[in-house]
Amino acid sequence: MRLFVVLALTCAVLFGRPALALDALPSWNDGAAKQAIIAFVARATAEDGREFVKPDDRIAVFDNDGTLWTEWPAYSQLFFALDRVKALAPQHPEWRKKQPFKAALENDFKTLAAGGEKNALRLVTATHAGNTPQEFQAIVAQWLATAIHPHFKRRYDELVYQPMLELLAYLRANGFKTYIVSGGGSEFIRAFGERVYGVPPDMVIGSTIVTKFVVKDGAPMLLREPKINFIDDKAGKPVGINEYLGRRPIAAFGNSDGDFEMLQWTTAGEGARFGLLIHHDDAQREAAYDRKSAVGRLNRGLDEAQARGWIVVSMKNDWKSVFPKPGP
Amino acid sequence: MRLFVVLALTCAVLFGRPALALDALPSWNDGAAKQAIIAFVARATAEDGREFVKPDDRIAVFDNDGTLWTEWPAYSQLFFALDRVKALAPQHPEWRKKQPFKAALENDFKTLAAGGEKNALRLVTATHAGNTPQEFQAIVAQWLATAIHPHFKRRYDELVYQPMLELLAYLRANGFKTYIVSGGGSEFIRAFGERVYGVPPDMVIGSTIVTKFVVKDGAPMLLREPKINFIDDKAGKPVGINEYLGRRPIAAFGNSDGDFEMLQWTTAGEGARFGLLIHHDDAQREAAYDRKSAVGRLNRGLDEAQARGWIVVSMKNDWKSVFPKPGP
Repeated sequence: MRLFVVLALTCAVLFGRPALALDALPSWNDGAAKQAIIAFVARATAEDGREFVKPDDRIAVFDNDGTLWTEWPAYSQLFFALDRVKALAPQHPEWRKKQPFKAALENDFKTLAAGGEKNALRLVTATHAGNTPQEFQAIVAQWLATAIHPHFKRRYDELVYQPMLELLAYLRANGFKTYIVSGGGSEFIRAFGERVYGVPPDMVIGSTIVTKFVVKDGAPMLLREPKINFIDDKAGKPVGINEYLGRRPIAAFGNSDGDFEMLQWTTAGEGARFGLLIHHDDAQREAAYDRKSAVGRLNRGLDEAQARGWIVVSMKNDWKSVFPKPGP
Repeated sequence: MRLFVVLALTCAVLFGRPALALDALPSWNDGAAKQAIIAFVARATAEDGREFVKPDDRIAVFDNDGTLWTEWPAYSQLFFALDRVKALAPQHPEWRKKQPFKAALENDFKTLAAGGEKNALRLVTATHAGNTPQEFQAIVAQWLATAIHPHFKRRYDELVYQPMLELLAYLRANGFKTYIVSGGGSEFIRAFGERVYGVPPDMVIGSTIVTKFVVKDGAPMLLREPKINFIDDKAGKPVGINEYLGRRPIAAFGNSDGDFEMLQWTTAGEGARFGLLIHHDDAQREAAYDRKSAVGRLNRGLDEAQARGWIVVSMKNDWKSVFPKPGP
């Protein structure tokens, strides 16, 4: 069976046809969203078609939080920062009396939330810096290997969306390059992007903190500083994509108004274009939130998706399963 | 003959052996530099060897000015900026009385040089902004198609180094990914990088000006602003490489102290490593400059190359030819 899949995908790449023969998207219910995805890939890869896109230009960009893995009830990177505050607390006795660290140490989410994005950024810069990118990635990897999500009671890297893993693989099998474009930190995502999503470090375009080149005891290295360099969110997403790639993607996948400009810019180009928003309407299997949510707010996107020709995926109706089945 | 080259390179890729059978570097004289390059590629690609590097990690970074094309007697991008000042002058009558524009319009290089890097940056920001990346690239492409270098009397994109074009192709044939890491502007280099060097837009890591996402008459676009965002030079080079790639290269090629930190960081990693500096000592065929030059100063690099195991290429002795033969 596995050999058959490989052969089918190989044929799809070699002959420029989407892998239709077998179902490359088994966790998607047959419906408008799945059909739209398959039809788009067929148009972009049909060499004799009007909308054929040469492989170099088959660039697909994916938001991460809420698009590839859960962001409910809070971003995983925020949970990581809170765990880091606790781990680093012995070296910072002053944190016991200083906000937002005090709230983090006491699991006082009310105070944390009241401080909004500013609090989150203070926690992130204080807990993500003072190391090299490699050291930081090792810390994240170590955390992912052990930390359990407070709501879903599973490892964070198991809370990825099975239908989206299939979509990533399906696009790649059809000659697309798949990038992650995230408000989350580049080095945070690089710690697991290749293993979990098949997206290597150089295909992660995320937020960054200032990094400095230093020579320490004769060894040249990069050192992460507690200062924001670039926030890859909202209007920053098209800017980040252009800075790294110098090309406009032809397909963009998101779930919140933080992805609006990325979809807007992507789908305004000529030829085959595709925009898709995941609507979290699945209180039973994951969560239901949209217009008024503090995480992943989706308001303008819901209003304008139809007029703009963007697909809105109902997690509840379009997805057969949400998370991968727990391993053995 | 051409088929034979393709076959040999294909074999090199398939069987992980460097393309030794035929000379992939015909414009390099047989000498220590050429031997060191071939020996390094052999070590990195020998699957049964101690220093084998898997293809994902075969990352080679190249400076552009003075390494891939001439920077003598001034950076080509500065000549472009001067030509742009003249082209835009009718819309800016005030420039006739305002420095550094007055000097640019009057070819007063003495005044321009006296203003140093600050003058150059003012000219660059004033002449590179107010357009989209695509519009800017079209302007550069148009300029390259017609402008003639004042000293060498050839098109700027013909003043590339033939031995380095061969080196780029040789490394790629051996599974390396070749990136340009330049103090020059990303969008400037993207205008010709793929055509001239075979380096696509997403493999150019250069300096950038601030770019903003705007919606104009309903059309989303990116607009270049007259403000520096990032200077990809000196200690900025390792920072830029890590930001874009999340990996440390294994080979770095430069020609000035602006490349020092890039070579230092690259060659300090473990396993097969390679650092190379081009020494412009060829007054007859190009130019002779190093420790005291205003462009491409090479001082510390000359002092420390030997102790650090970096190869210093003598343009005069190591290269059979400098520029490609003029076309028909």
